[in-house]
Amino acid sequence: MTGTMSEHVYKHIEVTGSSTTSSDDAIRRAIAKAAESVRELKWFELIELRGNIDGNQVAHWQATVKIGFRLDDE
Amino acid sequence: MTGTMSEHVYKHIEVTGSSTTSSDDAIRRAIAKAAESVRELKWFELIELRGNIDGNQVAHWQATVKIGFRLDDE
Amino acid sequence: MTGTMSEHVYKHIEVTGSSTTSSDDAIRRAIAKAAESVRELKWFELIELRGNIDGNQVAHWQATVKIGFRLDDE
Amino acid sequence: MTGTMSEHVYKHIEVTGSSTTSSDDAIRRAIAKAAESVRELKWFELIELRGNIDGNQVAHWQATVKIGFRLDDE
Amino acid sequence: MTGTMSEHVYKHIEVTGSSTTSSDDAIRRAIAKAAESVRELKWFELIELRGNIDGNQVAHWQATVKIGFRLDDE
Amino acid sequence: MTGTMSEHVYKHIEVTGSSTTSSDDAIRRAIAKAAESVRELKWFELIELRGNIDGNQVAHWQATVKIGFRLDDE
Amino acid sequence: MTGTMSEHVYKHIEVTGSSTTSSDDAIRRAIAKAAESVRELKWFELIELRGNIDGNQVAHWQATVKIGFRLDDE
Amino acid sequence: MTGTMSEHVYKHIEVTGSSTTSSDDAIRRAIAKAAESVRELKWFELIELRGNIDGNQVAHWQATVKIGFRLDDE
Amino acid sequence: MTGTMSEHVYKHIEVTGSSTTSSDDAIRRAIAKAAESVRELKWFELIELRGNIDGNQVAHWQATVKIGFRLDDE
Amino acid sequence: MTGTMSEHVYKHIEVTGSSTTSSDDAIRRAIAKAAESVRELKWFELIELRGNIDGNQVAHWQATVKIGFRLDDE
Amino acid sequence: MTGTMSEHVYKHIEVTGSSTTSSDDAIRRAIAKAAESVRELKWFELIELRGNIDGNQVAHWQATVKIGFRLDDE
Amino acid sequence: MTGTMSEHVYKHIEVTGSSTTSSDDAIRRAIAKAAESVRELKWFELIELRGNIDGNQVAHWQATVKIGFRLDDE
Repeated sequence: MTGTMSEHVYKHIEVTGSSTTSSDDAIRRAIAKAAESVRELKWFELIELRGNIDGNQVAHWQATVKIGFRLDDE
Repeated sequence: MTGTMSEHVYKHIEVTGSSTTSSDDAIRRAIAKAAESVRELKWFELIELRGNIDGNQVAHWQATVKIGFRLDDE
Repeated sequence: MTGTMSEHVYKHIEVTGSSTTSSDDAIRRAIAKAAESVRELKWFELIELRGNIDGNQVAHWQATVKIGFRLDDE
Repeated sequence: MTGTMSEHVYKHIEVTGSSTTSSDDAIRRAIAKAAESVRELKWFELIELRGNIDGNQVAHWQATVKIGFRLDDE
Repeated sequence: MTGTMSEHVYKHIEVTGSSTTSSDDAIRRAIAKAAESVRELKWFELIELRGNIDGNQVAHWQATVKIGFRLDDE
Repeated sequence: MTGTMSEHVYKHIEVTGSSTTSSDDAIRRAIAKAAESVRELKWFELIELRGNIDGNQVAHWQATVKIGFRLDDE
Repeated sequence: MTGTMSEHVYKHIEVTGSSTTSSDDAIRRAIAKAAESVRELKWFELIELRGNIDGNQVAHWQATVKIGFRLDDE
Repeated sequence: MTGTMSEHVYKHIEVTGSSTTSSDDAIRRAIAKAAESVRELKWFELIELRGNIDGNQVAHWQATVKIGFRLDDE
Repeated sequence: MTGTMSEHVYKHIEVTGSSTTSSDDAIRRAIAKAAESVRELKWFELIELRGNIDGNQVAHWQATVKIGFRLDDE
Repeated sequence: MTGTMSEHVYKHIEVTGSSTTSSDDAIRRAIAKAAESVRELKWFELIELRGNIDGNQVAHWQATVKIGFRLDDE
Repeated sequence: MTGTMSEHVYKHIEVTGSSTTSSDDAIRRAIAKAAESVRELKWFELIELRGNIDGNQVAHWQATVKIGFRLDDE
Repeated sequence: MTGTMSEHVYKHIEVTGSSTTSSDDAIRRAIAKAAESVRELKWFELIELRGNIDGNQVAHWQATVKIGFRLDDE
């Protein structure tokens, strides 16, 4: 393997958050929960937006995001 | 066919709602309209988010959702 | 839900038409048949173009289109 | 429009059936239920195979199929 | 080439806007910026929703949209 | 962030199980193995079905499933 | 960078043409319009075929094509 | 293996035909050429529609089709 | 070209098998038929699962598989 | 069928080559092997890049390419 | 529109570079050529890797990349 | 569950490695880093190839790979 070893390596996880409020809030909750067990979260990408319907209204917004975080020590 | 007959069967429809306010609101309107003719809506999935632009601003948010509902009597 | 209720809501259906003549004609036939039972057809999108072969020639062009129509009363 | 009018037109619907037994059985149930309200079902295509897990075992197999049926009178 | 020449032709561009506020706002910013150099923007389609995470929170919402505009003189 | 904190967050993992018996059994084995190290498995989705061929017969059915489980304490 | 600099570089643009006549004609119009502002168009690829429906008939065929052209001086 | 052995097995090949005339004609040519070396062609599916542009006009329509044919003796 | 020439090269074919019994059996039949004319089949991947419906029941399960086999002499 | 018969028809095959050296070399090997049995190879497209890992290092690069070749006599 | 106006907006273009040497070099050439007419290139994504074959060898590697650049003044 | 329990189960992770040297090297680095925390890495699949551009040159090649490893004790 050539070059310096200073470049970073990232791992991705996929998490679904839900919210009664909005799609953006469901994304924020997925990230907040993931941050409890993984350090150095760096970016997310929305994979899927779904939701439950109850009484003809959106009961829960469910956002599945792929989240990237830096694998720590280099 | 084996097993009990108690499991549910769901049908999916695809509907586009629009809103001048937000993408989430366009989703809510699609669901509200679908609920006028179909009972037992259970979930949705966002398929496409588009919009019209007028005067360099979003005039209508247009959300296409797949909606699942239970086929009623078993 | 905010905003005025005047925006339209559209439903989509998926239909396959066939023709011995051409791919465009298969699309036209799918639309013509759908129009017999649904009012206010507004747009289509070609999903798939297939066909049957008989005697080394295209016997039927089969065009699957997604068709959008306005959900009528608002 | 050219050619004869004798070719058939098909409509597609999307249905999810579930079974405690097997993935194939979930497909069969989706078709059996759809057949209660639509005549002339002709083919299906598996769109998605999911399931619920309970007690570390598959509790329900859930098969989403697209089903094609002939639009009746020509 | 047959038919009248009056139909419009549209060109598409792909732009990523970002916002500290919301996903919808990131879309609005992409459109506002594109409007500075292109006239006659007509529609958009969301292609991708990503974001940067800083301190376990969404720092920037990043929305990539495809935007269609009319090629002017006909 | 608004709303109550009571909604659940799910993480997804991707696992490939194999079986000499059937495709459904390969799915069951993937789930059984995942359950040894993760609690609260809730659903799966089939991502890919492959297999090894030996002596012109299916030697192993290999099912790749995405499995969702609840991130435990809320 | 190794090798000679004589190889060509191509840029792609995405354009939607429309026609009242046929899908092929919509493609031809997209290309004819693009040729007014870009030299050296070399190839196209059909990305999407849609259309407007008016009075239960196809009013406009709308073909979106990706068009490649050579970036001129080398 | 269970059941009768009378069901058919089909093989698929992918072929690109070209035409100076139309997209449909490019499909017909692909099929005509494939028929010279394979018997029992049964169906096709359009995979891709491309073309060469010369002098700002479509010089060749290039249609890539997947063609299915019956594996003969059972 | 560098390195030893000992690595294998594989070719893929796409075949559809059908069965009145099950989806797995349709896969097995596709493989069994392909094995009549090609040696050294090594793996398969399910591409599509469809079926014919007759009398509201699955008449034939139709599994399309991509099959890989070793190009023999090295 | 209209027009001259001089246009070419191409067939595509899918081949996986492997190399201990690099991804590009795996592509070259797939092409070199395919060339032993098919004349007039004209182009390739990378479909998938995979590899085996042994001792935490890439042991074999495996490149799957779609290769187009001209169907010879016209 | 809320929030500060300081966030950046990016535009994407799609370019194909070619090289007789390697796939990486074809990417570098696409970027080098794009940089002649656009400032502030920031990232690329490989969209497609193809090539011409001549004499059973790769004659040109052709890499299509999507390139993002900052829309300059804010 | 039937059959012997001897078949293996694999888990997949998604990792992005980067390199200033080449795309292949970015893949190697992703694998080397993953190997620090997971045993028995068996294969990889390239999911995405991106990069940063600085001074009109590729500054970092960024390869996202899915890596499969054996879930250890059986």
